[in-house]
Amino acid sequence: MNEQELISTFVGAQHVRRPDVVLGIGDDGAVTQVPTGCELVIVTDTLSEGTHFPKGTPADALGYRCLAVNLSDLAAMGAKPLWASLSLSLPVADSQWISDFTRGFFRLAEEFEVELVGGDTVNGPLVVTVTLHGCVRRGHSISRSGAVAGQRIYVTGWLGEAAAGCRALLNEPVSADGVTKRLVDAFLYPQPRVREALDLVGLATAMIDLSDGLYTDLQRMLDSSSTGAVVDVGRINLSPALRSQSGETEALQLALTGGDDYEICFIVPADRAKGVEEIARAWSCPLVYLGDTTVERGVCWLRSGSKFDMPDTTYEHF
Amino acid sequence: MNEQELISTFVGAQHVRRPDVVLGIGDDGAVTQVPTGCELVIVTDTLSEGTHFPKGTPADALGYRCLAVNLSDLAAMGAKPLWASLSLSLPVADSQWISDFTRGFFRLAEEFEVELVGGDTVNGPLVVTVTLHGCVRRGHSISRSGAVAGQRIYVTGWLGEAAAGCRALLNEPVSADGVTKRLVDAFLYPQPRVREALDLVGLATAMIDLSDGLYTDLQRMLDSSSTGAVVDVGRINLSPALRSQSGETEALQLALTGGDDYEICFIVPADRAKGVEEIARAWSCPLVYLGDTTVERGVCWLRSGSKFDMPDTTYEHF
Repeated sequence: MNEQELISTFVGAQHVRRPDVVLGIGDDGAVTQVPTGCELVIVTDTLSEGTHFPKGTPADALGYRCLAVNLSDLAAMGAKPLWASLSLSLPVADSQWISDFTRGFFRLAEEFEVELVGGDTVNGPLVVTVTLHGCVRRGHSISRSGAVAGQRIYVTGWLGEAAAGCRALLNEPVSADGVTKRLVDAFLYPQPRVREALDLVGLATAMIDLSDGLYTDLQRMLDSSSTGAVVDVGRINLSPALRSQSGETEALQLALTGGDDYEICFIVPADRAKGVEEIARAWSCPLVYLGDTTVERGVCWLRSGSKFDMPDTTYEHF
Repeated sequence: MNEQELISTFVGAQHVRRPDVVLGIGDDGAVTQVPTGCELVIVTDTLSEGTHFPKGTPADALGYRCLAVNLSDLAAMGAKPLWASLSLSLPVADSQWISDFTRGFFRLAEEFEVELVGGDTVNGPLVVTVTLHGCVRRGHSISRSGAVAGQRIYVTGWLGEAAAGCRALLNEPVSADGVTKRLVDAFLYPQPRVREALDLVGLATAMIDLSDGLYTDLQRMLDSSSTGAVVDVGRINLSPALRSQSGETEALQLALTGGDDYEICFIVPADRAKGVEEIARAWSCPLVYLGDTTVERGVCWLRSGSKFDMPDTTYEHF
């Protein structure tokens, strides 16, 4: 498969046509129109074989995942997805692999009406970079830095499942039972919280998506906001699947430091908390109230009211 | 050097602060404002070690080059550069290497007032992806497809020098004479034709930048425009440095099929040709009139009036 055939495969597999794309794939660049009254949000995430996904990860999952992690970043800004660029460094241009990758990518792109407007394909080790664009109403993006003391901290979803799934995937052969499949799918096919995040525009004062684990990412958001927090880890949702595979203690550790959750963690003023919990009833994922922000910096981690000692493990790319 | 130190190095080295950047590096995404009345242009290019640059390429040159090739794409659309995202996959986070890379990147970013607004750094093989954003007045982008028959084809610069420089670089040790240095620099530090391209907005009917060589790229542009051309290769500028190193025949072959020139090739209506040539007198690079577009498809290559047989070599990533 040469470069032109590769591009044709992508063009042929795309069914989303956005009216705000003036010129799509096939020229030196794409030309688009940002909706009137909106600001542009730009996010970029790279997945490298052996670092972000194990060798042998199904191409369908990689195609899905490289877009999912970017949608998650965009969600964390409160932005509506618009256009993607895809850069694919590939050791071999195998047509079955490309077709699987393409299917995974466009399944998610269609779900969120994202149009692929360009990119690059090069011969090299397996590395995938997506730059994703979205929009927010002028002045309405949600950064990590807008929270103040006395506000409520929430997190979505079932933390730790993806980390357990990644571990299961590394211990091949993957057992075919339902529990393992659920965990592995949580890693391979994370559901970005785009719709949930859009509901929070005008309500959340700060938001972050969980790529490196709640322990690290919550502290990042609090540091950006120059605030601290008291958080009860006993409130974290540990799914039956995760508990059955890992046991209580390890499950909690995976939920806090395992990474790859791609859930959103956000902060709302106390007088908006009820409204947010009301809205979240329509969501397809659970929402958990974790604790409150404080004037005192740093996080005081509790478990059912007593001090909880965090395991000393954080995620580092280098 | 961990990821946070790496990000700090980039943030510390950046001096460009654009007023249209609402939120820069350090959050889940960047927030920017596209100038009123403008469309957004998005380009992406990936450089992979061993494919786009030889192992051992100086980090300064790689930092410069990864932005230069994207500026060249943006130029080819007639767009003004605004913001960049940088994704860096690195085997080792060596602080000297990072510092050199950063210097090369920001030297060029400052020249064209590009603000780095985000990106990603991951551990992996050496692969660099830049997504660059620019703007054009609504409806004024220059695609590859707007030319018709009877228009004039131009190309900037000294073709073939970069290809000769790349070859010299592969035959280490690189000799220290001035000729070789000029050729190697043409490969490592191409000068994107951004200013020249902006002068052509409203004049050029089609434009492309030369990454794969005039032979391939001109045909791409003509195919997009559904037109053909008669072109005289005898008019191509072959620099004294290139001639002295390669001889006449090989020099011409490098100029046509060597690639990596990052010059612009464009088409203008015949009645605008004089005006364009006038404007080009102020440019820092030569401009050459190559020939004319024709109703008949395909390119008729001539050399001093006689049919010229093209060597059968084109550039393919796969």
